[in-house]
Amino acid sequence: MVLWGCIIDFFTYESTKSVVIKNWSVGIINRIVQVAIIAYFVGYVFIHEKAYQTKDTGIESSVMTKVKGFGRHYDRIMDVADYVFPQEGTNVFCIMTRLYVTENQFQGRCPDSWPFTCTMDDDCKKYYGSVLSSGAITGKCLTEDNESPGVCEVEGWCPTENEAFKTKPMIDIRNFTIFIKNSINFPLFDVTRGNFPSTMTSDEIKNCTYHPEKSPFCPIFRVGDILNYTEQTVEKLIEKGGEIGINIEWKCNLDIDLDYCVPLYSFTRLDKPFEKNAISKGYNFRFARYYKSDNGTEYRTLYKVFAIRFDVMVTGNAGKFDMVPTLINVVAALTSVGLGTVLCDIILLNFLKGAEQYKAKKFEEVSPAQIEASLTPSPDSRLSLKPGTKSSLDSGMPSL
Amino acid sequence: MVLWGCIIDFFTYESTKSVVIKNWSVGIINRIVQVAIIAYFVGYVFIHEKAYQTKDTGIESSVMTKVKGFGRHYDRIMDVADYVFPQEGTNVFCIMTRLYVTENQFQGRCPDSWPFTCTMDDDCKKYYGSVLSSGAITGKCLTEDNESPGVCEVEGWCPTENEAFKTKPMIDIRNFTIFIKNSINFPLFDVTRGNFPSTMTSDEIKNCTYHPEKSPFCPIFRVGDILNYTEQTVEKLIEKGGEIGINIEWKCNLDIDLDYCVPLYSFTRLDKPFEKNAISKGYNFRFARYYKSDNGTEYRTLYKVFAIRFDVMVTGNAGKFDMVPTLINVVAALTSVGLGTVLCDIILLNFLKGAEQYKAKKFEEVSPAQIEASLTPSPDSRLSLKPGTKSSLDSGMPSL
Amino acid sequence: MVLWGCIIDFFTYESTKSVVIKNWSVGIINRIVQVAIIAYFVGYVFIHEKAYQTKDTGIESSVMTKVKGFGRHYDRIMDVADYVFPQEGTNVFCIMTRLYVTENQFQGRCPDSWPFTCTMDDDCKKYYGSVLSSGAITGKCLTEDNESPGVCEVEGWCPTENEAFKTKPMIDIRNFTIFIKNSINFPLFDVTRGNFPSTMTSDEIKNCTYHPEKSPFCPIFRVGDILNYTEQTVEKLIEKGGEIGINIEWKCNLDIDLDYCVPLYSFTRLDKPFEKNAISKGYNFRFARYYKSDNGTEYRTLYKVFAIRFDVMVTGNAGKFDMVPTLINVVAALTSVGLGTVLCDIILLNFLKGAEQYKAKKFEEVSPAQIEASLTPSPDSRLSLKPGTKSSLDSGMPSL
Repeated sequence: MVLWGCIIDFFTYESTKSVVIKNWSVGIINRIVQVAIIAYFVGYVFIHEKAYQTKDTGIESSVMTKVKGFGRHYDRIMDVADYVFPQEGTNVFCIMTRLYVTENQFQGRCPDSWPFTCTMDDDCKKYYGSVLSSGAITGKCLTEDNESPGVCEVEGWCPTENEAFKTKPMIDIRNFTIFIKNSINFPLFDVTRGNFPSTMTSDEIKNCTYHPEKSPFCPIFRVGDILNYTEQTVEKLIEKGGEIGINIEWKCNLDIDLDYCVPLYSFTRLDKPFEKNAISKGYNFRFARYYKSDNGTEYRTLYKVFAIRFDVMVTGNAGKFDMVPTLINVVAALTSVGLGTVLCDIILLNFLKGAEQYKAKKFEEVSPAQIEASLTPSPDSRLSLKPGTKSSLDSGMPSL
Repeated sequence: MVLWGCIIDFFTYESTKSVVIKNWSVGIINRIVQVAIIAYFVGYVFIHEKAYQTKDTGIESSVMTKVKGFGRHYDRIMDVADYVFPQEGTNVFCIMTRLYVTENQFQGRCPDSWPFTCTMDDDCKKYYGSVLSSGAITGKCLTEDNESPGVCEVEGWCPTENEAFKTKPMIDIRNFTIFIKNSINFPLFDVTRGNFPSTMTSDEIKNCTYHPEKSPFCPIFRVGDILNYTEQTVEKLIEKGGEIGINIEWKCNLDIDLDYCVPLYSFTRLDKPFEKNAISKGYNFRFARYYKSDNGTEYRTLYKVFAIRFDVMVTGNAGKFDMVPTLINVVAALTSVGLGTVLCDIILLNFLKGAEQYKAKKFEEVSPAQIEASLTPSPDSRLSLKPGTKSSLDSGMPSL
Repeated sequence: MVLWGCIIDFFTYESTKSVVIKNWSVGIINRIVQVAIIAYFVGYVFIHEKAYQTKDTGIESSVMTKVKGFGRHYDRIMDVADYVFPQEGTNVFCIMTRLYVTENQFQGRCPDSWPFTCTMDDDCKKYYGSVLSSGAITGKCLTEDNESPGVCEVEGWCPTENEAFKTKPMIDIRNFTIFIKNSINFPLFDVTRGNFPSTMTSDEIKNCTYHPEKSPFCPIFRVGDILNYTEQTVEKLIEKGGEIGINIEWKCNLDIDLDYCVPLYSFTRLDKPFEKNAISKGYNFRFARYYKSDNGTEYRTLYKVFAIRFDVMVTGNAGKFDMVPTLINVVAALTSVGLGTVLCDIILLNFLKGAEQYKAKKFEEVSPAQIEASLTPSPDSRLSLKPGTKSSLDSGMPSL
C-alpha cells in the first residue's frame, strides 16, 4: 500500500501556476519581445548561422603547384627549374625576380666588401664575431695606402659578395602562370573535392586563366593578375620581393547539391605590416651552387635572390543537417521565448497603473506567523497536503 | 526601521507556485520525457562526449622522417640522398619513382621538341610568350625540308627535354621504409608524448614494421604497405606519382593512464578528387643539377621527376576532468529536465479530458476590471501585500 | 466578435504565480547562491573569459627567417648558404652543427662499411634487400684473407660512408643570429600586425638581441640564447642535433589600443619525448652535391648532417566587443541567477521546520476527483475560465 502511494506520487505532474493578466500594454510588449526572440532565432541562429547543421571545421587539404613560363635575366633565359624554390611544387614556393651572382668563390682570405672601415688592425679586432661582415673577421686591416681608410680582412668564401651594381628585375614574371591543384577532404562527412571540376577537358584547362567573374574555377593563375589583385605597387614587389597569400576558401553546405561546394580565391600581401619599416622590406635569401675544379678544390657561385613568395592557404568548413544540434537549438529557442517575461514582469510590477494589485495577485505571501500557526495541529492543512512522502527530487525539480 | 524592512524584504524567498495534477497519462509522459532527457545527458553528453572534461585541441606537433632503401633506375642504384626531396626529413617529402633525364643543357637556341608545328616564321610568332613550349619562342621556324612541317626555334636551355621514350618506374620503392618520429604536446595540460614508447629497444625498432594489428606502435612503415592501405592501384601510383596522406591521430583521455595516449595511423590518397580528370593526374616536378665546364660555362642536367608525395598530418585532442565544464553541464542537465513540462502542458491543457478544468486551475485570471475595482481603496488587498517597497529587481528576478 | 476575442486572448500576459516565503534561512541561502552565480559570471565569464567579445581564432600568419653568422668546421668557414636548409628562409629551417663528408663517390661496387660481416657469399645473400647496408647488397662476400671475417659487397655510390672517426661540432653556432619577421592577420577584424614595431629604426634592429625582459620586441635571436631558454644541455643538442620550437603567441584585445597587441615568444625542445629512447636521439639527415668529371661521369659528395631544426609556430586569437555574444551571455547570466531556487526549494521543502506547510502553500493539488466533479456542469468554473479558445501555444509557452 505504501509502495502504491509512492508510485502514485511519482506519476503526479506538477505544472507552474500562472497568473493571466488582461492588460493591453504588457500583453503587446510581451508578444513583441517574443516575436523579436523568435525572429533572432529563425533569422540569425537558424538561417544565417545554420545552427541546424553539424559543422566540420577540420578541413584536410593538399596543394600541388606548378609554375610555367620563361624569364630573361640579362643574357640568360631561365625556366622553372632555375627560378622556383623549392622545386617540389608545394603550397609555399618562391619565384625569383632579381638576383646578384658572385661567381667562383673559393675558401680563403680577402678584403671585406662591407661595412667596416679601418685604419689599423685594432679597428677590425673589435668586430670579431660580427655577423654583419661577409666572412669571419680575421682582425687584420687591409689598407691600399696610408691615406684612404682600408677594409677589414675576412676569412671564408672569397671574393665576397658585392652589391654595388644594382641589377634589374626579371619583368617577365608577370606572364608566368601558376597551376594550383588543391584537393580537400572533410573527414567528418567523408567528402572530398577538387578545386576544378572533373568535367573540364584538357584543352579548357590549358587555355584558361583565372578571373574572379569570367572563369572563377580555372586553376591557372597569371602572376601579373595575382599581383594586381593584391592592390600593391607591382614594380616595387618585383624589385624588392614580398610575400603573397593565395587564400582558397571552401564553405560547403552539404544539404544542397555537392556541385555548389566550390573554392573561392582571394589574394593578399602577407608582409603588409612591414611596408613602412626601416629595414627588411621585401624578401630575399641566399643560396649557392657548388662545383669542383680539376684539382678537386670545391668552389661555388653565390646567389642573392630577391623573390616573391606565394603561400597557398586553404581554409573552410562544411555543414550538414543533424538532429542533435537542431534539437538543442529548438529547445534553446523555446526556452528563450519565455525570457520576455523578465522584462514584462519588471514593467507590470513597477510602472503600470495597478502595479500593487498585480503584485498582490502574482505573489502569495507566506509569513512565518502563518506557518507557525499551522504547525499547531490543524487537520485542514494536512488534508490539503496529503502526500507527505514526496522526495526532494520530486518537489524540487518541477520548479525549474 | 525602514532599512530593517528593506533587509527583511531582501531576504524573503520567492518560489513559483505549482499545480500538482494527479493524472496518470500526463504523469507518465512527464516522467518518460524526463528520463529521456536524463538519458541523453548521461549517455551522450557525459559518457560519449565527455562533457565533464576540459578539451585541448591546440595540439603542437613535430615530425621527423627518414627514408631508407636502395632503388635501381636503369643502370644506377639510387639512395636516399638521390631520391628524396627535400632531404631534411620534414613532414612532407617526395620519393622519386620515375624520371626523365636531359643531360648537358647549355644556354642557346635550338628546335623545340613540343608542341607547335610550323611551316613559316609567322606560325611561330603567334606563340610569342607561350608557356607551353620548352623555351622562349624566338619566332623562327626551323624546317628540315620543304615538305614535312618544321618546329619553332626556342631560346633557353638546349637541347630541350624529350619525353618520346617512356621510362620505366623504380619498382624497388615498395621495399623502402619510412621511419616517422612524431612528438606532440598538449600545451594546456603540459603533456608531451612520442609516437613510440621509450621502452622499445634499439633492436625492436630496427626490426619491426608497422602493421595495424600486429605492431600498431612500430614507427617504421614499408612504402608498399602504405600504398596498399590506401586501396589504390599501386602500379599506377608508382608510374604517374601521387600524394599520400599519413594521418596520425592522438585522442587522449588524461583521466586514465597516460600509457593509453597513443597514436592511431591511417592512410589516404590525397589527390583522389583528380583521379578522373582529363589532365594532371599524378604528381611530377622538374629540377636541375648545375655543372661548370672547363672554360667556366655553366651547364645543367634537367630532371623531370614523377614522385609520390607523403604528407604526415597530425591531429588530435586531449581531455581532462575539470570542475567548470562539469558544473555547467550538470546545471544544463538539471535545467533541461524541466523542459518536459512544455510538452506535458500542451497535452494537459488541450487533449485531456477535463482540459478546461485544468486550465482553470493552472491559470488564474486577473482582468482589468478586478484591478480597477481594487484600486478603489480596499484595505484587504493592501493588507495581503504589505511590502510596498519591493525593488524592481526583487520582484522581477525570481520569476526567472 | 470571435476575432476580437482571439486578439484579446492573444495579447493577454501570463506570468508565473509565486509564493513569497518570509524565512531568514532560505532567504539568505537564496541570496548567497545568487551572489555566487553573479560573481561567477562577472568575474570568470565576463572579466576573465571576456565573454562579451567575438573571438577570431583563425589567425593567418607568415614567417620569414634569416640566419647570420660564420662557423668554422675544421678547415673551412661556412656561411648561411652552406649551413642552412632550406635556404628560402621559411618558418622551418635547420642549422647544421656537425657533418660527415664522404667525397668523390662514383656509381660502382665496393665493400660495405657497415653492419654485416660474412665468411661466404651465402652470409650476404640472406641480406638481399636490406635497408641497413650502405648500398644494394650484391650477395658477394669480400674477404681479405681466410681468417678474419669479411664484409658484404654493395652496389651503389662508392666508397661508402664511414663514420669511424667522430667529427667535432661547429660550436660557433651559439653566436649565430636568427632574424624572424612574422606578420599576422585576423581576417574577421581585418587587423594585421608585425612582430616588431615600424617605429624601430634600422640601427635599433641591427644592434639589438632578444631578451624576455630587456628587449622583448627585438626580432633578432641569438641561437645560444634560444638553446639556453629551452633548458637543455646545449652541448648534447649541438652534437646530436634536435628540434627547437619557437612559439610566437598573439593574444590581442582589440578593445584596447592596438599597440598592446604584441607577440610573446617562448622556446621549447620539441623532440623531448625521445630523450630517453634507445635510438634516434637528435636529428640528422643526408644530402649530396653532384659534380661531373671531365669525361662526363657524374660523381657526388655525400654529407651526413647533424642539425638543429627550428620550427617557428604562430598561435593566437583576437577578441573585440560585440553585441551578440554580450546579449547571449547577459541572458545566460540572468537565467542562471534563477537556478538558486533549485537548491532553496530542496531545503525549504525538506529540511526546514514547517516544510509540510510550505509544501501545502507551494503545491496546489488537483485530484482527478475534483476534475470529474467539475465536469458535471458547473457554471462557476466556466465563468472563471472564459477564454475557451486559447491556443496550445498560448497556454503552453508561458509555463517555460
